[in-house]
Amino acid sequence: MSEEKQYSDKMEKLFELVAELTDLSHISAVLGWDQQVNLPSGGTEERGLQSAALGRIMHEKFASDEVGELIADLEEEVGDLYADTDEARAVKVSKKFYEKQAKVPLPLLMEFIKATTMAHEAWVSAKAQADFSLFEPHLAKIVDLRKQYAELYQPYDHIYDPLLDDYEPGMKTADVKAIFEKLRPQQVQLLQEIAEKEPPDNAFIKQVYKEEYQEIFGRYVITRFGFDWNRGRLDVASHPFTTEFGLGDVRITNRYREGDPGSAIFSTMHEAGHALYGQGLAEKYKRHPLSGAASLAIHESQSRLWENIIGRSQEFWSFFYPSLQMLFPENLADVSLTDFYRGVNKVEPSFIRVEADEATYNLHIMLRLEIELGLMEGTIEVGDLPEIWNSKMKEYLGITPPDDAQGVLQDVHWSGGMIGYFSTYALGNLASVQLWDKLLKDNPNVPDEVAQGKFDTILGWMREHVHQYGSKYEPQEIMIRATGSEITPEPYMAYLRKKYTQIYDL
Amino acid sequence: MSEEKQYSDKMEKLFELVAELTDLSHISAVLGWDQQVNLPSGGTEERGLQSAALGRIMHEKFASDEVGELIADLEEEVGDLYADTDEARAVKVSKKFYEKQAKVPLPLLMEFIKATTMAHEAWVSAKAQADFSLFEPHLAKIVDLRKQYAELYQPYDHIYDPLLDDYEPGMKTADVKAIFEKLRPQQVQLLQEIAEKEPPDNAFIKQVYKEEYQEIFGRYVITRFGFDWNRGRLDVASHPFTTEFGLGDVRITNRYREGDPGSAIFSTMHEAGHALYGQGLAEKYKRHPLSGAASLAIHESQSRLWENIIGRSQEFWSFFYPSLQMLFPENLADVSLTDFYRGVNKVEPSFIRVEADEATYNLHIMLRLEIELGLMEGTIEVGDLPEIWNSKMKEYLGITPPDDAQGVLQDVHWSGGMIGYFSTYALGNLASVQLWDKLLKDNPNVPDEVAQGKFDTILGWMREHVHQYGSKYEPQEIMIRATGSEITPEPYMAYLRKKYTQIYDL
Repeated sequence: MSEEKQYSDKMEKLFELVAELTDLSHISAVLGWDQQVNLPSGGTEERGLQSAALGRIMHEKFASDEVGELIADLEEEVGDLYADTDEARAVKVSKKFYEKQAKVPLPLLMEFIKATTMAHEAWVSAKAQADFSLFEPHLAKIVDLRKQYAELYQPYDHIYDPLLDDYEPGMKTADVKAIFEKLRPQQVQLLQEIAEKEPPDNAFIKQVYKEEYQEIFGRYVITRFGFDWNRGRLDVASHPFTTEFGLGDVRITNRYREGDPGSAIFSTMHEAGHALYGQGLAEKYKRHPLSGAASLAIHESQSRLWENIIGRSQEFWSFFYPSLQMLFPENLADVSLTDFYRGVNKVEPSFIRVEADEATYNLHIMLRLEIELGLMEGTIEVGDLPEIWNSKMKEYLGITPPDDAQGVLQDVHWSGGMIGYFSTYALGNLASVQLWDKLLKDNPNVPDEVAQGKFDTILGWMREHVHQYGSKYEPQEIMIRATGSEITPEPYMAYLRKKYTQIYDL
Repeated sequence: MSEEKQYSDKMEKLFELVAELTDLSHISAVLGWDQQVNLPSGGTEERGLQSAALGRIMHEKFASDEVGELIADLEEEVGDLYADTDEARAVKVSKKFYEKQAKVPLPLLMEFIKATTMAHEAWVSAKAQADFSLFEPHLAKIVDLRKQYAELYQPYDHIYDPLLDDYEPGMKTADVKAIFEKLRPQQVQLLQEIAEKEPPDNAFIKQVYKEEYQEIFGRYVITRFGFDWNRGRLDVASHPFTTEFGLGDVRITNRYREGDPGSAIFSTMHEAGHALYGQGLAEKYKRHPLSGAASLAIHESQSRLWENIIGRSQEFWSFFYPSLQMLFPENLADVSLTDFYRGVNKVEPSFIRVEADEATYNLHIMLRLEIELGLMEGTIEVGDLPEIWNSKMKEYLGITPPDDAQGVLQDVHWSGGMIGYFSTYALGNLASVQLWDKLLKDNPNVPDEVAQGKFDTILGWMREHVHQYGSKYEPQEIMIRATGSEITPEPYMAYLRKKYTQIYDL
């Protein structure tokens, strides 16, 4: 014990506290994963109580005055919270986490948990019956509680800012609006040009593909991507998701549908993108205040990169298509690589966000942002949502959902109180292309490598510029450090235009 | 809130505290199950830290002076802890649990956890290399720590009593010795008589049986037993075990070996026996101080009942053998039901406890008890164990292990500090027959029902007389209430003698 001390006693104390909290939050993730993957129906009630017990303990441990004082002292110790040191950033991130825990009065937190639990159940029924009225009072309650939550952060520039900041640290509503305002006309314009052209044929994908072989293909692809099976798993759940129980255990899930192979194949790549980010954290940040991710948009930049920029590229399929043909000769033996590539990139305005192609996806997001802003500003009433949803779908995508299940009720997020989340999907799309462009500039040979099934350069570059840092840098900092620019729509639009010009002969 | 209060404020407080502790211990069980069933190798270190964090929190929550005072007050409130009320018994069980937590000084607890963690690793290596010397110093340390632990419970009748009591509440070393002294000569005598007879042929079982079909058969059998799949699962792990995350989620595991179908089939029934006990707790004891089991022997009485008394009976196979023949025609088409029944009941002294037949199993246990008593009394040195083990094997079973891996190193228990555990296996065997005899007396038609694949009466009887009570009654109380007698060896010996007289024509 004669080593020189690296940190002050108080800093050590913070690190110990956060290490324990990290353990507890990873335990909470185990409970959640098991609930999605394994839980027999009879176990639901007790599992809910177990998760709640753990949540209470975490709140008790971190929302105390003692922790507040510790963090205040450490803030003084490090001075500038934005200094480029692990200590300063650890205090900055811990302070933010502490404030989010301590600022919310326990009764409001409990009311929120109760309301979202009930709202989730109501949403499941409402969606199953395509009846928005079953969900409406619950959503109204949630909007009210989210407003109360946002008020705790006064003064703010916009009431939506505190919600957005939960998912995208440092990002303001005004920033997102400015980005989307630039993006929207270009997306709409591109879509119109595409609509005038002859669409590719993708009938081959609407056939029966054995689920077991879909999984074999997915596992093969993400193994080549660099997914570390010694530090992760792939299991079946009703929804694809990624979760982390530590640096050594990052798990993804998927679901397979016989008649829809594209869904499982691209989901596998998408979730692997999230998982590669989690597996790429620097070893020194294990159980550390900086062990998280920069933001949801940065997370999504990784998943969308592997799913779309790589996974829907010509180079990718020139390597992997023969393997897919081997597994599914009855479906694909007579489909050429070019026809397959064009088919999986067919642009088709559709009702469901998660099934949207690259050209239409962001429009689904913009629609949701406008609605969320209206709800929080008080200019949109919850009761009017179905009508507003449908008219915006018509305006942006030219189609009208046949019912609310395929419209306003399609996504789970609002039932869980996650208002402020959706924008990060579109921001992630933009960021993915910015990162990709810089990676290509640094490594012009990468497309050839992809065509040879090699992904080391890509993964290495992302590890170096993004993954290793955990939550040390805020999302815009990560982007500036890695690409020289904040998140901006131009590269994404250039990417889309180039891709679809080639496919659709625009 | 105008309901009449059922309990005093303090009793309510105890119930709330125990409900939370139950949630936490179920979370701990989830972590353990996931570690056995799913954990990628890279996740081991972090999972260990997660489990430790949870253990610390549970200790903090329950080993406080405040809890001690609460329990002391409640003891006064209920008066007789052995009164036949839920309140009295809840206080009794909670008091015992509290004392086990609070009596042990934290440094001793931490030393024990550290020693057993290291000992487990050493045992794995020692067993793999069949080299006892690698394990010897660790076991010596554990014996020393167990002695220190036992000393905390002075005065005791025997230094082994506090260890035994951890697994078998209320049972004394003298009781177990008296039972085993009656049992041993009769078991040895039976074995000698069997050895003089022509053994049945079980060559058919030493063939290749497709693992997937072994699992299909096991699932079919335990479904018929009454295993509730809405409140449980069956998964693959390296060892068969049962674990509970609540009344609504009781899981079992198994492992399948192509060349050894009996192992998986009987393990499935064994673990299902444990699980049926867990699923049979009264609803009112969910998250309650009495939610546990009476003891390990009572637990084992259930697993051995379904595995052996039922699962190795002629009636059982008269119903299930055709299904097994359907799955494995190449192995079994030409094997008659009688030959099959005799084959799976072949008596064969063997080195490994978990593979022992009914006639030899208890001898493996007696050997271990004698060694454990010697270690705790100080009459046996750890260094002499291999020699003592081998000479006792020769004496009881007439065979000598070829190496220590198949001898003194075969079981995991001692590496985890579980001295005092083994006897419960033999006691469970005895109890299983006593319960079965009473069940038959109450329901003489049960063997016919088994031959028709019906198990409702059996499960219903066990639910009524054993399962529902959780840990309300101590093991001997359960036995007296259910059968009119404490655990005693005569019924078991009568059962064995009758069974083998028929099979071996004694």
